[in-house]
Amino acid sequence: MNIASLGEARFPSPVAQVVSDQARIPAVIVRDPAAPKRDDVLFELAGPRAKLFFDPVKTRAGIVTCGGLCPGMNNVVRALFLELHHTYGVAEVLGFRGGYQGLDPARGPEPVVITPAFVDQIHHHGGTILGTSRGPVDVAAAVDNLIRRDVNILFTIGGDGTQRGGNELFQQSKRRGHALSVVGIPKTVDNDVAFVARTFGHFTAVEEAVKVLDCAHTEARSVHNGLALVKLMGRHAGFIAAGATVANQDVNFTLIPEVPFKLDGPNGFLSTLKERLKKRAHAVIAVAEGAGQELFGDAATDKDPSGNIKLKDIGLLLRERIEAYFKEAKIPIVMRYFDPSYLIRSSPANAADAVLCDLYARNAVHGAMAGKTGLVIAFLHDTFVHIPIEMLVLEKKRINPDGFWWKAVLATTGQPARFE
Amino acid sequence: MNIASLGEARFPSPVAQVVSDQARIPAVIVRDPAAPKRDDVLFELAGPRAKLFFDPVKTRAGIVTCGGLCPGMNNVVRALFLELHHTYGVAEVLGFRGGYQGLDPARGPEPVVITPAFVDQIHHHGGTILGTSRGPVDVAAAVDNLIRRDVNILFTIGGDGTQRGGNELFQQSKRRGHALSVVGIPKTVDNDVAFVARTFGHFTAVEEAVKVLDCAHTEARSVHNGLALVKLMGRHAGFIAAGATVANQDVNFTLIPEVPFKLDGPNGFLSTLKERLKKRAHAVIAVAEGAGQELFGDAATDKDPSGNIKLKDIGLLLRERIEAYFKEAKIPIVMRYFDPSYLIRSSPANAADAVLCDLYARNAVHGAMAGKTGLVIAFLHDTFVHIPIEMLVLEKKRINPDGFWWKAVLATTGQPARFE
Amino acid sequence: MNIASLGEARFPSPVAQVVSDQARIPAVIVRDPAAPKRDDVLFELAGPRAKLFFDPVKTRAGIVTCGGLCPGMNNVVRALFLELHHTYGVAEVLGFRGGYQGLDPARGPEPVVITPAFVDQIHHHGGTILGTSRGPVDVAAAVDNLIRRDVNILFTIGGDGTQRGGNELFQQSKRRGHALSVVGIPKTVDNDVAFVARTFGHFTAVEEAVKVLDCAHTEARSVHNGLALVKLMGRHAGFIAAGATVANQDVNFTLIPEVPFKLDGPNGFLSTLKERLKKRAHAVIAVAEGAGQELFGDAATDKDPSGNIKLKDIGLLLRERIEAYFKEAKIPIVMRYFDPSYLIRSSPANAADAVLCDLYARNAVHGAMAGKTGLVIAFLHDTFVHIPIEMLVLEKKRINPDGFWWKAVLATTGQPARFE
Amino acid sequence: MNIASLGEARFPSPVAQVVSDQARIPAVIVRDPAAPKRDDVLFELAGPRAKLFFDPVKTRAGIVTCGGLCPGMNNVVRALFLELHHTYGVAEVLGFRGGYQGLDPARGPEPVVITPAFVDQIHHHGGTILGTSRGPVDVAAAVDNLIRRDVNILFTIGGDGTQRGGNELFQQSKRRGHALSVVGIPKTVDNDVAFVARTFGHFTAVEEAVKVLDCAHTEARSVHNGLALVKLMGRHAGFIAAGATVANQDVNFTLIPEVPFKLDGPNGFLSTLKERLKKRAHAVIAVAEGAGQELFGDAATDKDPSGNIKLKDIGLLLRERIEAYFKEAKIPIVMRYFDPSYLIRSSPANAADAVLCDLYARNAVHGAMAGKTGLVIAFLHDTFVHIPIEMLVLEKKRINPDGFWWKAVLATTGQPARFE
Repeated sequence: MNIASLGEARFPSPVAQVVSDQARIPAVIVRDPAAPKRDDVLFELAGPRAKLFFDPVKTRAGIVTCGGLCPGMNNVVRALFLELHHTYGVAEVLGFRGGYQGLDPARGPEPVVITPAFVDQIHHHGGTILGTSRGPVDVAAAVDNLIRRDVNILFTIGGDGTQRGGNELFQQSKRRGHALSVVGIPKTVDNDVAFVARTFGHFTAVEEAVKVLDCAHTEARSVHNGLALVKLMGRHAGFIAAGATVANQDVNFTLIPEVPFKLDGPNGFLSTLKERLKKRAHAVIAVAEGAGQELFGDAATDKDPSGNIKLKDIGLLLRERIEAYFKEAKIPIVMRYFDPSYLIRSSPANAADAVLCDLYARNAVHGAMAGKTGLVIAFLHDTFVHIPIEMLVLEKKRINPDGFWWKAVLATTGQPARFE
Repeated sequence: MNIASLGEARFPSPVAQVVSDQARIPAVIVRDPAAPKRDDVLFELAGPRAKLFFDPVKTRAGIVTCGGLCPGMNNVVRALFLELHHTYGVAEVLGFRGGYQGLDPARGPEPVVITPAFVDQIHHHGGTILGTSRGPVDVAAAVDNLIRRDVNILFTIGGDGTQRGGNELFQQSKRRGHALSVVGIPKTVDNDVAFVARTFGHFTAVEEAVKVLDCAHTEARSVHNGLALVKLMGRHAGFIAAGATVANQDVNFTLIPEVPFKLDGPNGFLSTLKERLKKRAHAVIAVAEGAGQELFGDAATDKDPSGNIKLKDIGLLLRERIEAYFKEAKIPIVMRYFDPSYLIRSSPANAADAVLCDLYARNAVHGAMAGKTGLVIAFLHDTFVHIPIEMLVLEKKRINPDGFWWKAVLATTGQPARFE
Repeated sequence: MNIASLGEARFPSPVAQVVSDQARIPAVIVRDPAAPKRDDVLFELAGPRAKLFFDPVKTRAGIVTCGGLCPGMNNVVRALFLELHHTYGVAEVLGFRGGYQGLDPARGPEPVVITPAFVDQIHHHGGTILGTSRGPVDVAAAVDNLIRRDVNILFTIGGDGTQRGGNELFQQSKRRGHALSVVGIPKTVDNDVAFVARTFGHFTAVEEAVKVLDCAHTEARSVHNGLALVKLMGRHAGFIAAGATVANQDVNFTLIPEVPFKLDGPNGFLSTLKERLKKRAHAVIAVAEGAGQELFGDAATDKDPSGNIKLKDIGLLLRERIEAYFKEAKIPIVMRYFDPSYLIRSSPANAADAVLCDLYARNAVHGAMAGKTGLVIAFLHDTFVHIPIEMLVLEKKRINPDGFWWKAVLATTGQPARFE
Repeated sequence: MNIASLGEARFPSPVAQVVSDQARIPAVIVRDPAAPKRDDVLFELAGPRAKLFFDPVKTRAGIVTCGGLCPGMNNVVRALFLELHHTYGVAEVLGFRGGYQGLDPARGPEPVVITPAFVDQIHHHGGTILGTSRGPVDVAAAVDNLIRRDVNILFTIGGDGTQRGGNELFQQSKRRGHALSVVGIPKTVDNDVAFVARTFGHFTAVEEAVKVLDCAHTEARSVHNGLALVKLMGRHAGFIAAGATVANQDVNFTLIPEVPFKLDGPNGFLSTLKERLKKRAHAVIAVAEGAGQELFGDAATDKDPSGNIKLKDIGLLLRERIEAYFKEAKIPIVMRYFDPSYLIRSSPANAADAVLCDLYARNAVHGAMAGKTGLVIAFLHDTFVHIPIEMLVLEKKRINPDGFWWKAVLATTGQPARFE
């Protein structure tokens, strides 16, 4: 989406090689004569444009980081600032503090004016220098604040809820006649964003998860009937659990939200686990936090301040059920339970993610300066594209139980395709 | 390419969900109305097929690793074996030792019969358990050997030369009426393979290079006029230097093969470096080994046993020229020279590369069992495809001096687009 | 203690430079005129002796690893074997499996005959290749087994209980006229062994704990009123918590078993924490698992199979009490709880510990071959010594609340000396 | 040494538990009836004293870092400041910049007034935030400057030359009636300081060296007759090479300055290496930079600005001689040369070194505030002591070719005790 309808100001880009505004990337690139025909979904190519919508010397930009931590948030903040400041020469970049609360003067502290010194070393550290919080943005208060501060560009680093909030900020600004470009950088360690091949921080999370699985394997095989149970992040999608399983190669059972499983019965998880112990006397189990929610029945569900459903703790349930099962079967086991989530998400970005953060951020600046709004930057098919927020929030990306990820997990673990 | 012409044997795949043999991925996916029309280059989608060409119980497969070390070689060997053994149940998997020499009984040792125990821990270690060497394959001797040992499938893990050799093995086998499926897994830390977005080990190399740049930055800024010069791998393409520069964010000058540069003159590298020292009193320089070869004049060029041109040492040249320049200018400097190449390529694969290795290898097995030959597996546009070896060796992938990689380097370093 | 009373056989040492059997190291080396006079406690210097008690070519040695995992166990096993095999040339080295159960043929599997290939790579991995378990040794069954297998030397890698068990094995063997040299290598990540400056694996544990504290600090300071609470190992002594606090430098409160603390009251922990939050809006708390046991009242106490008292969970208590306190005070906090224990102890040994393991093990072999028994090897005052097991188990080493460790913690954290 | 002769001012210590000024530690603690009697060398125990010589509120302290980089320099700077500022409350702490040049206003930049914000994150980074340089101090200019700035305490972080310079500063200040306490923290990655068991940064250097040896081993064993030659730091003493060899366990030959060796002849290094290649087809060689200097003949020797003799490059000599030897013998080899020195010394301190840095620094502050001068802090026999600079510079600590370190190297490598 382009906010040019609000005005026609156009300035030349400072970047030599630019990207055509007509270039598109299809969402689906496989051509299969046997597959049913579908209309193409096409995305704008991200990158610098020949003409800017905003005059850099008069432009104020803001950055806000929301939701849970994710490796690379500081890298994104740093590269946003450096591109705005050095490449485009914008007048000022404000860092709003403490997530969306920081957009509301009544709730958050004063924003920081970002400088080169402020961002000098931040990419070496995890977390977010700007602070973060959960919870929705007060749209009216935030737009008042942005107008008062003369902010024309806002970068929102966050998940679904954050991006939806960003969209509302843009819509309300438009209604009030204030040209506000809102460009999101999708943030989720879970890598579950539709149309996005790889969100920043995800590879780092997998790398950290692999270290935990290494420890789990060591614990499990150092004792007789050692069971190491590792709960990994992954609310709706098992990409961390699957990626870490395939990278680590020593996991025997991986459980993800996309593939429901039964505990009991002759083909259930518990009796399969017993068979494994009989043969090999140890086992490593990786479970995504969103897996097996169907096992809890239809109890009422709480929500967190961001509106996310509070998941039932599948890790603790599994631990209890496994211990009870083997106690009943009079088979002594040694259970080791690992719940490393904060350790994983608070790490600094690894090299591959640091590069990704830099490219996400600089493409976000290109889009914003060209007057694009209501979109997020996405890395898809080796390319950066623009995705309208409305499309992004329609669905989540999940592991296809018939696709190559699940096949890779099954090949590595040797577990049956289903516990049923 | 399919070797079905040699026979019509067809066996059902043990993998439930299979990929259509008609599915294709285009090499170029951007649709730009302004761009000139070109014929599509299309690649077969990799993955398990409905019908196998080889009967697993009668099939012998071989694996060979060639050329310089690269992170992840052992992961590939391991996953090839596990997929052949567990998923397809082939009769035997041989590991040929010491590169292509191992295919020739007169030059190499007896191959090893690979077992689960043999591959149990190898993915935790860098290098290759099978050993490697440089130099071409003796095609006649190798085909004799493969026929004698009843080997129908050969996986070649190596660079351009290795894949060309693999193609010759397949061609000669065909002429001799022996059904030999040769499937390559492209191996280059430099990530310079045409049509391949990401070769295995490349991200690990970038990660290790970043650590060296961190040390270089520490050395440079701890003394007055500290200059840290880091020579990184990259014979024809600067992807490691560029990736490490963007990830590290502390490099001031990056020199790559794709962008020639002048040392002398008012806009040359040396006087720009002097300006930097005047302002900031330290500098970090990353140079790809293949950069600046034009500075050596047209001296005769040696080749290594693999037929690669022996590069002139741009690292040492730069060091000498920089030291001479500042001596002449009577500006004392402290020069720190880093040449970490073996440290980088001998590391074990990081998590992202471990996953990539697994998927490369399992797709190679799917292709070979279906009777594909004369191709390599490639990861392109988030997908695995088959690329005919003839196409692969036509050109190398390089950094486009007008593209986003070089733009990202310039943005991070703040260096001028050209030294000229 | 020397088992020479059982016989007078003496063989020349294969090691050129040997240590005098009369050399001693005092336990206390500070000379302070103002301090009260005490009788010296002196320890034998460890190291190769001129004469061996056992004839290598007729000697069988055994190794057993017991109790919880600790970084470096495999390094010790490896160096024990290499010294026995290469330096002394003993006939056979048996690895008893699964801890003390493995000494009892009725309960454990057959021991493994250790070879160079068996130990080739084990030092790169955490855990113990021999397996481990908790629980006492069946002395009669074990001595029967050792006599039957003609084992004259047993190395026991384990904690207090293990070493006490080793002493009983030696005593009973002596009563039965079997020359058995039992030499212990003390194993505790907690570093709480009397007369031992540094047990193997402790530095690695501190290193891993520091990584967790880094993550905790990142989590705490990325949100408003972020509280990161990290439970670290340390049943009776706070050396891991103190060491990690001093190394990390970002912890604000460290709680250890040696310094009791009050939660309530104006100088209690909770109100001090509230003051910290008011000033800085985040805090990192490290608590050793054995800290604050006095807060649980005199409830009955369970024991684990090794006879260790099962500690009450101070981490969970603190979390509950902190959450309740701030809820009551109507101060919103964001609590992040970390319980990384298995992650810390299952790591491979770092370099400093790898060296320590090698030296512990080789000194253990020297002592055993010279016919020493009923002792453990200790690293004290930069030197390796022999400590009789009876002395070792008299007391535990703990942090002196008036000494330099606690002073260093207070200086780093800025916390008050006592919460009372 | 105590500067109390300059005045009698005495202030109470803010530290509750103090150390007696009469407490001593002997240099030699082994008691061996067979050893010849020697007079004891005794060292003062370091630690807080009951009475301070300097009144904190009127005291200005300075810190200077000199010579080559070493892991932990920033940790020392940070802990010095924090102890001076928080524990003692001194008026001001100055950071002199760029080594001893920074003490001379004519040659160095203005010193920085250190604040909590200045040191907040520095311990996470290698190098020195204050900058460093080589070369002697201009004593007269420096003392002028210290008097003018009213600096009464100077902490010198550096090697032999630095400490000698510090001693001269103290002596000249005394002659000029200015009470100046100079307390050194010995800095050498080589760990070759007399009477010091462990200098800060040494363990980190060993850890980094081990990583290089891992890579070297991978390179060597992945090809036929692979030779990996690693040059490690160690000008006069082989502690890094020996420590890394024992920790890594995969080195086959270790060469150190303390044990001269012959290259030629039937028992020389080269023919022993040939035997190794015949048997195992690969070898890893670690050589300390100061080893084998006797092989260069008595050529004239240059010195660097610090007055250190410039070593001849034993790494390159070995590489040439090995290549020539095997060429002559017509045995093809693959040589991999590693020279990682800057990579090793510029790393941040690991946890064990971070703790050591903290304790060194805080003990230095205790000594200085009590009016001690002309001494360095040393960690000896698990204790911190004061060593007069005159004693320290009398000799260097070296590996005893008959002691346990060399024995451990021989046991690990399996190499002969001497090549002669």
